[in-house]
Amino acid sequence: MAPTMTETAFVPRVDEEDLLRMMEEVASYGATADEGTHRLTLSVEDKLARDWFVRRAESEGAKLRVDRAGNMFAVFDWAGPDAPTIMTGSHLDSQPNGGRFDGALGVVTGWAAASALEKARLETGVVPKANLTVVNWTNEEGARFQPSLLGSGFHAGVHDADFVLSRRDGDGVTVAEALGAIGYAGSDEVPLADALIELHIEGAEGLERTGRRFGVFTRFWGAVKYRLAFIGRQAHTGPTPMADRRDALLAAGHVVVGLREMADRGGLDLHTSAGRLEVRPNSPNVVPGEAVLFIELRSAVPEILASAERELNERIAAAAKSARVEFEIRSIDRRAAGSMDPRLVQLAVEAGAAIGTETMKLDTVAGHDAISLASRIPVVVVVVPSVAGVIHHPSEFTSVEDRLIGARALTEMLRRLCFEDGFPRGETGT
Amino acid sequence: MAPTMTETAFVPRVDEEDLLRMMEEVASYGATADEGTHRLTLSVEDKLARDWFVRRAESEGAKLRVDRAGNMFAVFDWAGPDAPTIMTGSHLDSQPNGGRFDGALGVVTGWAAASALEKARLETGVVPKANLTVVNWTNEEGARFQPSLLGSGFHAGVHDADFVLSRRDGDGVTVAEALGAIGYAGSDEVPLADALIELHIEGAEGLERTGRRFGVFTRFWGAVKYRLAFIGRQAHTGPTPMADRRDALLAAGHVVVGLREMADRGGLDLHTSAGRLEVRPNSPNVVPGEAVLFIELRSAVPEILASAERELNERIAAAAKSARVEFEIRSIDRRAAGSMDPRLVQLAVEAGAAIGTETMKLDTVAGHDAISLASRIPVVVVVVPSVAGVIHHPSEFTSVEDRLIGARALTEMLRRLCFEDGFPRGETGT
Repeated sequence: MAPTMTETAFVPRVDEEDLLRMMEEVASYGATADEGTHRLTLSVEDKLARDWFVRRAESEGAKLRVDRAGNMFAVFDWAGPDAPTIMTGSHLDSQPNGGRFDGALGVVTGWAAASALEKARLETGVVPKANLTVVNWTNEEGARFQPSLLGSGFHAGVHDADFVLSRRDGDGVTVAEALGAIGYAGSDEVPLADALIELHIEGAEGLERTGRRFGVFTRFWGAVKYRLAFIGRQAHTGPTPMADRRDALLAAGHVVVGLREMADRGGLDLHTSAGRLEVRPNSPNVVPGEAVLFIELRSAVPEILASAERELNERIAAAAKSARVEFEIRSIDRRAAGSMDPRLVQLAVEAGAAIGTETMKLDTVAGHDAISLASRIPVVVVVVPSVAGVIHHPSEFTSVEDRLIGARALTEMLRRLCFEDGFPRGETGT
Repeated sequence: MAPTMTETAFVPRVDEEDLLRMMEEVASYGATADEGTHRLTLSVEDKLARDWFVRRAESEGAKLRVDRAGNMFAVFDWAGPDAPTIMTGSHLDSQPNGGRFDGALGVVTGWAAASALEKARLETGVVPKANLTVVNWTNEEGARFQPSLLGSGFHAGVHDADFVLSRRDGDGVTVAEALGAIGYAGSDEVPLADALIELHIEGAEGLERTGRRFGVFTRFWGAVKYRLAFIGRQAHTGPTPMADRRDALLAAGHVVVGLREMADRGGLDLHTSAGRLEVRPNSPNVVPGEAVLFIELRSAVPEILASAERELNERIAAAAKSARVEFEIRSIDRRAAGSMDPRLVQLAVEAGAAIGTETMKLDTVAGHDAISLASRIPVVVVVVPSVAGVIHHPSEFTSVEDRLIGARALTEMLRRLCFEDGFPRGETGT
């Protein structure tokens, strides 16, 4: 399309130093000795990161909204209540002893893009066609509270407030109590946006192995997550005859081994895992009376996922029988496989081209907050490389250059949505 | 032998009400809602039980000694420094959410016997031939700190003070710090006794199934305990390709399953267990980077134990290879199988007869503080029934009648040792 006077003048520029500084500041909240991040959702460290988000919103002149799940929204009310709202951002919580970039980079680049756009708007006087919101979702990781994607699930209407607020961590603390303790128990009702773009680190080697610097997820894998309890009987590991034992950990061991067998047989289309195991009373000389296992099955193919879930149930029953214990499936979370909005995918490709990089199309196996909202609004997740595909580990790293590429591409996508064509009411121009 | 004037007059009587009250008082420290006990060693609850022990010693006129391991000795210095010392007692620490009787009953009956003997001594003026010490050992259970039998192992010279004081719990707190925090960091040097009698609950159904009320352990099983760490690499459970995972929990799962296979093949002469498993970071969507497994092998037969240990090592290596992880055996504790002192076994049999009960000879699979000292001094463990053989569970129960039988038999054993023949310098008369 032919450039207009306004477009010629309106050139948002990402402030490289600010981008670097923001990343370092956020990484300082919950920094670990090995350059990782330990910033569990709604912890003291998370409060510090949230306070930073508030200060940033204030200094940028955005209005802060905090909803009942503690999700934080910094709203640039550029175009008025009748105009669409474009949302970007990610999450500031981390895994236990996790990395600096997972989630945080999406929030930081969201701010970098918003600041670049706001500065250009103020300098040019151009009137945007959409409003912009930078978001920080609560408990994306699902490390402290389950399920993961809790805040975005609330925003999407998947979970109601009672459900969210009553989730308990391993110490029995509820989300409501944790929100209150750090001063982020909000009550704002925040309407759904008209589009959501989340920037994230890739967490695999798709970009790195092909030498690309920017990507867009086109499909997301489905997931089935079980919280499974085996209930045996605690007893002395010495005198109790082997035949009398009801060993909850033994049953869990069978399932852990079985999950891997399923994946090995399932080929590349099935991922299985048991990431968390709680053993009680967890004393060296007590036969475990309870073992709670957190299981995940993931696939892009619904039939494979359903078949794996059936096999999992058979294996659970067999493991319980073999160890002479009972079992309870305490929760099941299912996330359907699906696709990102094709217009937003195309927008990512064009934005990449506009800043001089090739956009690689990829699948995502991991969950993302944007995926929580995929059934409600147009969403897309764009990615930059993480070195060696590392994620959920202290050594997570995204180069300064790749952070900047991500911020520039995101800025360009938001520029087109907020200042050019509007989305999705108008044509996106893509 | 013919009774003398002195023996006729000297009739120690166990105070039944006092015995009941003591048991209830001790059970109140760390009482759980389900009538169990949660009194981890050197915890606040353990401090309360220790304070009770101090008050009891004061009210009985015994001298209190606390050594560097925090072991507590209440000394009745009846016969002077040149006379032998007979020791009795057990431990006041419990398993997490454990029972009321394991350990505590041995301390309480020790006090019941000591008080009966002291009262009779004061009333008759009979001069004892030996001194008596009531003991409370630190960290018998091995739940908070490893290894178990820590305090008695220090007293036996198996562990030096530096080793004991530097043990760390799961939160990184050392024994030295924990002792200091509750005010039981002692410095007394307490010499070895000349004999040790420990009363305990049986923890199996040997007595109950045969209708007996009192027993004596003649042999103790050997044990090999491994603290084994698998070290993988933490990674996202979603995108990380299965083939790239280095899953520490998977390796642990193989070993847990394998341990049971070993026991199933090993017949009645081998007990195996994995009671504790620490998973890090233990988040539902992170491939575990570390899994620390606490393994026990137990047998009365040294060859079976040695063979099982060899097989365990093969299985550990195979599990690590299969899961593509490293492993470290972080500690090994070995306790040899052995026998109790035959003279003390015979004394138990005769004391049982004297109070009108039959004494059953049994093996013990579990460790006991007395076993720590078996290579240094004559020791024996006598037992009363626990209903259904339950131990290390909140429902542990020993009837009031059986508690009294135990206390009376123990009193009779101590009477013979301290007031009749002396032991072991004189003949025991058995």
